[in-house]
Parts: sequence; C-alpha cells; structure tokens
Amino acid sequence: VSNNKSPEFILGIDGGGTKCKAIVVNANNQILGTGISGPGNPFQDLEQATDNIVLSARLALKEAGINEQLLPLIPAGLGLAGVNIPSTYQQIRSWQHPFQRIELATDLHTACLGAHNGQDGAVVVIGTGSCGFVDVNGKQTLLGGHGFPHGDKGSGAWLGFKAIEQVFLSEDGLAEKTQLTSLIMQALSVTEANQLVETIANQPASFYGKLAELVVQAAKQEDAIAYAIICDGAAYISRLARKLLEQQPSRISLIGGLSASITPWLDDDIQSQISPALFPPEMGAVLLAQQNSLTL
Amino acid sequence: VSNNKSPEFILGIDGGGTKCKAIVVNANNQILGTGISGPGNPFQDLEQATDNIVLSARLALKEAGINEQLLPLIPAGLGLAGVNIPSTYQQIRSWQHPFQRIELATDLHTACLGAHNGQDGAVVVIGTGSCGFVDVNGKQTLLGGHGFPHGDKGSGAWLGFKAIEQVFLSEDGLAEKTQLTSLIMQALSVTEANQLVETIANQPASFYGKLAELVVQAAKQEDAIAYAIICDGAAYISRLARKLLEQQPSRISLIGGLSASITPWLDDDIQSQISPALFPPEMGAVLLAQQNSLTL
Repeated sequence: VSNNKSPEFILGIDGGGTKCKAIVVNANNQILGTGISGPGNPFQDLEQATDNIVLSARLALKEAGINEQLLPLIPAGLGLAGVNIPSTYQQIRSWQHPFQRIELATDLHTACLGAHNGQDGAVVVIGTGSCGFVDVNGKQTLLGGHGFPHGDKGSGAWLGFKAIEQVFLSEDGLAEKTQLTSLIMQALSVTEANQLVETIANQPASFYGKLAELVVQAAKQEDAIAYAIICDGAAYISRLARKLLEQQPSRISLIGGLSASITPWLDDDIQSQISPALFPPEMGAVLLAQQNSLTL
Repeated sequence: VSNNKSPEFILGIDGGGTKCKAIVVNANNQILGTGISGPGNPFQDLEQATDNIVLSARLALKEAGINEQLLPLIPAGLGLAGVNIPSTYQQIRSWQHPFQRIELATDLHTACLGAHNGQDGAVVVIGTGSCGFVDVNGKQTLLGGHGFPHGDKGSGAWLGFKAIEQVFLSEDGLAEKTQLTSLIMQALSVTEANQLVETIANQPASFYGKLAELVVQAAKQEDAIAYAIICDGAAYISRLARKLLEQQPSRISLIGGLSASITPWLDDDIQSQISPALFPPEMGAVLLAQQNSLTL
C-alpha cells in the first residue's frame, strides 16, 4: 500500500445546525451511499455534533454496503458550521475521531467548493441562517453567519423572528393586523400574545425558520408586513452578495433551503449574476479531502 | 385579635428579572426595613424567584429589627414580573409561601399603584425590558413586555441588542463603523466579530441592557447608528404611551432605570403629559395588600 495511491473510499460530511449529511464516494467520486443524522454544529453542542458526524458516516457506509469496521481506513472531509470560531475549530482538531484522517473547513468553504466543482467562487447560503463566502486565489472571506437572533439577517430564522415581532406589535394595537399575523398565530396554535410568549420561550433558530415560508407566501400576496420584512432581508442579502463580488469570483451561487424563495426579491444586478450550484456541500467536503490529500 | 384590625406590619415585594426588592412597613406605611436579593421573575425561573422573594423579605425584616419568626404573621403584597402568563400566575398561587397571606399582581400593576399612590393611572416601564400598563375604573390593560429579544422594544436590552447587530454589520463592511461600534467592542473587550459571537453566546437580557447607556451617550453626540437606534426605540415608547393615554388615565409616569435617558427622545405630546412617580413599585405592592385587605 502506497501513500500516493488515491484512497478507495472518501467520506464527505456537511454538518449544520439542523442536520449532518454524509456521503461516501469511490475513487471516481460516484456516490455509493448517503447518511443523514441530527444537528452537526460543534459551536452549538460539541458532543452532539461529533456524535452526529460519526452517525451520518456510519449510515452512509451502511447504505453503500461497506463494513463500518473500515471507518478507520477512510479519510473524511468535514465542512462544519461553527468552526469559524477559533476555539471550536481547535476542539474539532483535538477530537479523537474514528476516521483515517480528517480535513476540516467551515461548511461555507465546502459548500463553495461543491458549488463550483472545486474551483474559485462565491456562495451565499440562505437557510435557517444566512452567510456569504468567497474564495479567490487562496484568499477567503466569510461574511455574516454570526448566529441567530443577532445576525443571520435575511435567513429563515430571521424572517420568522421578524414576523413574530410584528405579531406582538399587532396584538398590542401598535401595528396593523394583517393576513401574516393571523397565519403565524394559526400556525403556532395561539390566540393571544401571552400564549405566544409561552410557545416561543427557549425555542431554537430552527423553530423560527419553519415560519419563513409563511412570510414568503404572504409577501407574494402583497401582505404589507410580510412585504416589508422580505424587502429588508433581501436588501441585506443583495448587499452581502455585492460585497462578495468585490473579490471578483468567476461564479456566485445561492444555496440553502430558502435561496430559491429569496432570489426573486434580490436586486436585479445580483439576480443576473447568479449561477446554479454544480454539486452539493457534502461533495464539496469530498473535494476538500481530495485537494488536501494531493498537497501532501 | 380581630380580622378587621390593620396588620401591624406589611411586606411589599417587587420582583423583576434582575432583582427582588422588599420593604416592610408599619400601619402608617412608614418603611422600617428594606431587603434586596437576586432575580424574582417566576416565568424565567420559578424556584429562583420564590427563593429570592423570601430572601428579600427576611432581609427587610432583619434590617427593621423584626424577628423573622414573625413572617407567618405578616401579609405580603407581591408585584412580580412574569405573572401575566397564566401558568406562571397559577404556579405562584399554588406556592406554599411562608407569609400570613399573599396578594399577587404583576409588577406593572404594583408599579402603577405606587406611581399614583393607589389611584388610577398609567405607567411605562423602561429598564432592562419595556412595557406599559393602565388602570382606569377597574379596567386594566397591559401592553408590551413580551420579553427579549422578540419584544421589549426601546428597552435597555433592546438598545444593546440593536447596537450589537450593527457591530456585526459594520465588521462585515455592510454598515458604517462609528464611535458606537468601537465603544461596544471596547466595552466587551473584543476586536473582531468571531470573538463577539463567543462573548454574547447565551447571554441574558441583562447583559445587553448594560450596553444601553453607551447607545444613549453616543446618540447625544450624534453618532449616526446610535441616533437611529434611539429614535426607533423612542418612537415605539411614544406609540405605547399614546395607546395607554387612549384610556384617559388621570396621570402617566415613566419608571425604570432607562426612563430618564429615553424621555428627551419621546414625542413632545408625550413628554408634556408625564408626571413623576409618587412612590416606588414596592410601596405599590404594600398598597395592593392593603386594598385587598379592605375589600375582605
């Protein structure tokens, strides 16, 4: 066995605040198996994240029919939310992982590698959270992604949060009641503000993110509150994208569960420059593991 | 001993998210002793709140030189944050308290009783949180106070939170850097966004509230970001006050640690109607206990 030989299998793992997704590929980057587990953001919960990283990998091997006892022989590329925080990065680096080796980057970096098939480019991620990343000539810049509720403007969680703010104002008679405020209260099965306080207590970003599509739908029907929220969020996403484009990436892609819904609300100059993502983030994690392997 | 006789001593206790303050008064409402303990909001933490309610009472008795074994003979008026939530109200009602009896109301109701010496009126509380209350001819209306960060607009915590949002935007080059964004980072001993993410993780409203005076000071010096934040917050407080005034209370007072700082930013029609609070909230709690005693 030579160190120069490409590994037979490679794991690519994308870990975010909602779920961990792993794929195992062969030497031709064909996907042999996929595994999905729970939250994989080590800044939010280190033990939960490492457990779910390993679980998603085992599930991918199982689907591929690969004996999971081979895990110590398989390299893994990890793209993880939260490892932009230095202390979290070090915690994962010190982790006694079960893989042959790990290559570690932020989920943004691996999403960008996937979107542009390993080439330079930029991505804006709009899911439960929001952030931007650009990688040109080895210079990487990360924007946003500071977390909910103080950051992640324009994201699903942010849209849901802003809608709930308006529900409270409208229940107090300090803002108009619209279709949106009724829809939000119906969706949460509450009839007045105090019940809403109890319902939202200690809820994570994902709870608010589930309300985002209600805001999008109401905005399409010209609900005044929903329209104002979406315009504010989309204006931020346009500014974020424009800032990334200052680095002159050859491509820019919007990814994440809410990207398609937000795209029509972006400024025209941004919409016209968006290219579709070529591969998903977990394939970007595979490409990361391969790139770093080649430089050894 | 007759039931119609006024009790010799009465405890008045004001319990909020930051502290519990108790006074013990004699039959002439002269304050004999004061006690201060930790957070007393039973919606946030029931056991912590009840512990601090009792502790503040014991400290007040101690300062008054009253044997604390008399506690079961002394009635207590309790004005507590969080008991506007029905389930929290019931939890306190079912509490095996150590007092002769308790009279329970929201901290807003007792603040209003105190501010207007037991008469009808309205209060706007602007401290770590914000809310409004009006009591006219037995009709009580509570506005705002839905909690941080989704409610409590214009409050100290809200001002600090909005400032931190702007720091993140400015660090990403998506908003201007001003004196305020520098002051906030200095106050929190951080030099870049990732450190700030770590510093603010899981911080309570009181953490953000401590930044409010920086926003007020910067706004006075015409810092553009601070000015915009304060104007937005003060506009909400003006709307809240105007809504309370629709009930035609004979007096309206602004109370809470940030009320003096916000008052100059309120609309002129609101500023001109504000009267000073006559007594503090804990005396309002005493008045509550006396009122309900008289109706027996």
